[in-house]
Amino acid sequence: MRSKSRVLPVAGITSAQPQPHPIVHEDRRVAFVFDAPQATSVKVFVRGDATDISKEPIDLVKGENGQWAVTVGPVRPGFHYYNMVVDGASCVDGQAEVCWGWGRVMNALEVPDPDYGFYLPRDVPHGEVRLHYYHSAITGALRRAIVYTPPGYDQGRKRYPVLYLQHGAGESERGWTWHGKANFILDSLIADGKCAPMIMVNDQGYAAEGGMKAFGTEEQGSNVFPRVFVEELVPDVDAHYRTLADRDHRAVAGLSMGAGQAMQIGLTHLDMFAGIAAMSGGLRRFDAQTSYEGAFRDPAALNARLRLLWFGAGQEEGAAQRKAELEGTLGKLGVNYVWYDCIGAHDWNTWRKHLLDLAPRLFRD
Amino acid sequence: MRSKSRVLPVAGITSAQPQPHPIVHEDRRVAFVFDAPQATSVKVFVRGDATDISKEPIDLVKGENGQWAVTVGPVRPGFHYYNMVVDGASCVDGQAEVCWGWGRVMNALEVPDPDYGFYLPRDVPHGEVRLHYYHSAITGALRRAIVYTPPGYDQGRKRYPVLYLQHGAGESERGWTWHGKANFILDSLIADGKCAPMIMVNDQGYAAEGGMKAFGTEEQGSNVFPRVFVEELVPDVDAHYRTLADRDHRAVAGLSMGAGQAMQIGLTHLDMFAGIAAMSGGLRRFDAQTSYEGAFRDPAALNARLRLLWFGAGQEEGAAQRKAELEGTLGKLGVNYVWYDCIGAHDWNTWRKHLLDLAPRLFRD
Repeated sequence: MRSKSRVLPVAGITSAQPQPHPIVHEDRRVAFVFDAPQATSVKVFVRGDATDISKEPIDLVKGENGQWAVTVGPVRPGFHYYNMVVDGASCVDGQAEVCWGWGRVMNALEVPDPDYGFYLPRDVPHGEVRLHYYHSAITGALRRAIVYTPPGYDQGRKRYPVLYLQHGAGESERGWTWHGKANFILDSLIADGKCAPMIMVNDQGYAAEGGMKAFGTEEQGSNVFPRVFVEELVPDVDAHYRTLADRDHRAVAGLSMGAGQAMQIGLTHLDMFAGIAAMSGGLRRFDAQTSYEGAFRDPAALNARLRLLWFGAGQEEGAAQRKAELEGTLGKLGVNYVWYDCIGAHDWNTWRKHLLDLAPRLFRD
Repeated sequence: MRSKSRVLPVAGITSAQPQPHPIVHEDRRVAFVFDAPQATSVKVFVRGDATDISKEPIDLVKGENGQWAVTVGPVRPGFHYYNMVVDGASCVDGQAEVCWGWGRVMNALEVPDPDYGFYLPRDVPHGEVRLHYYHSAITGALRRAIVYTPPGYDQGRKRYPVLYLQHGAGESERGWTWHGKANFILDSLIADGKCAPMIMVNDQGYAAEGGMKAFGTEEQGSNVFPRVFVEELVPDVDAHYRTLADRDHRAVAGLSMGAGQAMQIGLTHLDMFAGIAAMSGGLRRFDAQTSYEGAFRDPAALNARLRLLWFGAGQEEGAAQRKAELEGTLGKLGVNYVWYDCIGAHDWNTWRKHLLDLAPRLFRD
């Protein structure tokens, strides 16, 4: 289990500091360690389709000191969810970074990517990530959006365009900054002059009438979420931030469940949004006449109205098939859209790259 | 294990939504549940001195469905750290709220307090909690401070006083908002006209030269933290926020380890701070001639210089003794100071009350 490779400092998710577990080596092997002197079995369960390691829980081996350990890999670069399994029970390791996905608190593994380091914080001006609380009359609950303001926001009087960017099912408003590192991606794009300085808003993608319940499903979420979004969130953001409060400077995007929400909200509110992006989702059960309240009935009119319609997927989550489906539906109708695919599965490594492609295409004046 | 009492919705720490575990009843009994069909022992370990329940791990009982459960209490109102123990191994429950204390990720239990609900979010204007990133030349690392801006900050051009408020050992910059709910406490005080609208800054209380290491001890922290604080953090905050950048509008406070830091930083930089507050700490190994670079050598001059010197403690962590010590040292010297004690131990329930007493005393023009 000993390694001569250098241990990499990996920035934490909820803090700027790394946690002691797991140990990530320069050669992308990862050492999981866990104290459980009395347990008879300790495993690590790395989730997702693109781990390059076992999709089943992996046994750790008990050492003489009662500390269990296993070194696996090389592990595919990027972000991976995992949890520990102690005598059959799913547990979170308190000495590792935590995040929120799969409908619960999970551990997070970040393996630096030599080819795609664009999401790591660089020594450039940093925007702020703000926890923005607002009361929803529709749900009767306190809600929290995460709002990124670009570097220099507080030092000037400039107004900015807004990208509304939503998470997927089983995740939360924390995902795009905790897991996606969207703030650092935008910091670097802005510093390099590759995208317009913009505000980014990540709201909770769930909203139920009559008070907040536990995180729900897409069906529950679709209940009143679009109303909360359009009637409460957007006006609240326009009231509290220096936005360019018109459709040309407002885009709505999301991943997976959020892709469906972005399509539904954007295409039925073209008076509010001129940019729509669907990452790893959207356009299910498409009908040119009836879907999205008939938004695709007049493709020429839609083309004239939308400044950007963007679709993306990871190559390991059926990107080729999605691309063909789009060509067979929207393409055939003559709808203008941008397609982007990249190496990656249905995970945050894909979505980080999606944002890297999407952001520079938005708000080009 | 069944209860007829109403289940309370308890706002989450890292989100606005509650997690499913544990179940908190109106009569303050708390049901812990945990899935572990193959485990032979599951316990819950509630930490701290003021739980009103066992200080040792408490056994859960296995049900027929493989779910373990125990109902305890009534549990003392307020915030409690805890973790699960599965066959002897410390684990975090992924279906409960998480927080960062005791040098690691822990679970959090919040039992609503009928007498002290001042820390819960009310339907008043909310300030923002901002993650503010900055590069430290002294440590060579990216650092993150949490900055509270009061309601209306973005809508006006007003400048605000700043309270620097530090966490204790084994905790982090997240503590005052994740555990302490300082943002909601200030929201309500400001809405009620009980304290001046102010900016609050919580920095990481650890800083080591030559790059960031894992969270350290007070000794490690005292290494370069005061320099980072005075030479980097305060100028950065004054550059990025609309502060009233003079000593009359700047206070430094902290709890436990942070109390020591506040005393050390404040008393040796009276040109920068006119308010100093030490919660559950400070004034160790006091010598009137040499401590704090001789700040107490001339009590009359110090009284004329300081607008507020505040000490507080919980009655269950030796408040009476601390109070007597202060009377025997500073009191005897004729130093003006405020003393405040309250029901509570060395925990967040005490420190929430401390902030409630402290904030209204600051920045009275």
